[in-house]
Amino acid sequence: MIVVVTPNPAVDVTYRVDEQRIGTTQRVRSVDRLPGGKGLNVARVLASEGVATHSVLPLGGPSGTWVADAVAALGLTATAVPVPGETRTTVTVVDDHAHPTMFGEPGPTVPPVAWLPVDEAVRALLPTAEALVVSGSLPVGSAAEVVTPWIADAVAAGVLVVADCSGPALLAAADAGATVCKPNREELAEATGCADERDGALALLDRGAGIVVVSRGADGIAAHTRTEVVEVAAVPDVTGNPTGAGDAATAGLVLALTRDTADPDLATALRTAAAFGAAAVLRPVAGEIDREAAHRFLTDPEPTRSTA
Amino acid sequence: MIVVVTPNPAVDVTYRVDEQRIGTTQRVRSVDRLPGGKGLNVARVLASEGVATHSVLPLGGPSGTWVADAVAALGLTATAVPVPGETRTTVTVVDDHAHPTMFGEPGPTVPPVAWLPVDEAVRALLPTAEALVVSGSLPVGSAAEVVTPWIADAVAAGVLVVADCSGPALLAAADAGATVCKPNREELAEATGCADERDGALALLDRGAGIVVVSRGADGIAAHTRTEVVEVAAVPDVTGNPTGAGDAATAGLVLALTRDTADPDLATALRTAAAFGAAAVLRPVAGEIDREAAHRFLTDPEPTRSTA
Repeated sequence: MIVVVTPNPAVDVTYRVDEQRIGTTQRVRSVDRLPGGKGLNVARVLASEGVATHSVLPLGGPSGTWVADAVAALGLTATAVPVPGETRTTVTVVDDHAHPTMFGEPGPTVPPVAWLPVDEAVRALLPTAEALVVSGSLPVGSAAEVVTPWIADAVAAGVLVVADCSGPALLAAADAGATVCKPNREELAEATGCADERDGALALLDRGAGIVVVSRGADGIAAHTRTEVVEVAAVPDVTGNPTGAGDAATAGLVLALTRDTADPDLATALRTAAAFGAAAVLRPVAGEIDREAAHRFLTDPEPTRSTA
Repeated sequence: MIVVVTPNPAVDVTYRVDEQRIGTTQRVRSVDRLPGGKGLNVARVLASEGVATHSVLPLGGPSGTWVADAVAALGLTATAVPVPGETRTTVTVVDDHAHPTMFGEPGPTVPPVAWLPVDEAVRALLPTAEALVVSGSLPVGSAAEVVTPWIADAVAAGVLVVADCSGPALLAAADAGATVCKPNREELAEATGCADERDGALALLDRGAGIVVVSRGADGIAAHTRTEVVEVAAVPDVTGNPTGAGDAATAGLVLALTRDTADPDLATALRTAAAFGAAAVLRPVAGEIDREAAHRFLTDPEPTRSTA
């Protein structure tokens, strides 16, 4: 079973309108509501591959109740940890004319004491966990060190940890010894202050990360260790909706790393991540992949290895 | 006690952003959530005047639960009638640069059978009711005749009915014999197909309405009976937020008509409506009035009477 922590879940609402126009009353033609947050996308992709997952979700207010119910309706196992305030909503407005407009609520302020039951929930799941995934932003105002106990406890229990965090939380995840830190290129540069990818990766490795996997969008994906850089090209000629592609890549990475724990093959893990990411682009909503495509893509790209 | 039916309640959400821009990700600086729907605005204004109200609210899903909780938190007495589907949300985006943009969800589809418990809830309240207010739109797909039993039962019980409906529901309210039909000028023209206000009012009177009160915005408010037209000018030089002014006017109208039931004085009722409407413009949110201003405005305008 793979434990997935989504520190800042959301109600992701999509409004379709005829044509976005500022300053008018817009009739919403269709409303889609999905439980959101990067970790939940990871869990959904893993579940669609038949992998048992257990999500840990700090949730507050009626929006939080909605997320808990919707997650259950999707067939995902989850522990909802009540927190004060109201789980955030994002509203994305789409039409056939312009780029989508996304409105992101700031979300609840979760005080330090409210994180303790989340720590306990994670700890309780570790004895039966194959991996821990920590994915997505922290609530506004929460210290980066919120992630520390989850990762440190998992590492102490010998559980593989993949941390897809950004900003100070990415540094805290490395400090706590995450097996894999998985930022995208921009997040890596922003968190470490290093313009060069290799320099940024080394900064996280120095802090304690085991491997640094950097997603480069259309430029593929790379894994940095102290001694080598393994690179896989992106699957070519895939167009669609890139939202959630990074989360699908995380799911692919975790899946590959947990399937062959005795000898985790980085190249295979990266190829799986690239294939899952591309297969997510083919689906209109985050948290889903085109499974047939994912497995077809896996046969394609060949990784490049270079000694660093 | 005044019974207020809001056939299609809403969660009214206001997002403040730095500057509205289509096709971007917008950080929401503040989120305000209020229970909405025209009837709830009427009930809130009445309650702020110390009038006992009892709201009847068809509510569905987690949004409906939120509305029920929020209405209770406002100190309003209400009967929440469960209906299928999810109570609608409206999202209004505001900044300091452009006019607000409002996104209105279509809301739940309430099947005919689901209205029966609403009818029962209204009927159960009539023995102790001084008035029944029916205010606001019907859910998409509901027949106009949904309003008929509420109004017919109230009329049969000798309870004053004020119907602030639009479209076919306005006609149905007149057919059912509503004591007062209170459209605005545009709603009257649209529902009756009459360009002339007097013609439109007569059409509703012919159908069975007792009085037709037409709100004219900055041009004041008029009451039409078979024999006369009473007109009151708008309170001059009032600027602010007109949202909810019509609902405050309805509250003023009902308040005046129920305060002196033996001899309901139309001119006083109209003046109260105009004063409450203007006092709502002075408040930033719908459902509130500047009470001091409302009572000051009441001393000002003098009505004009003409024999029709």
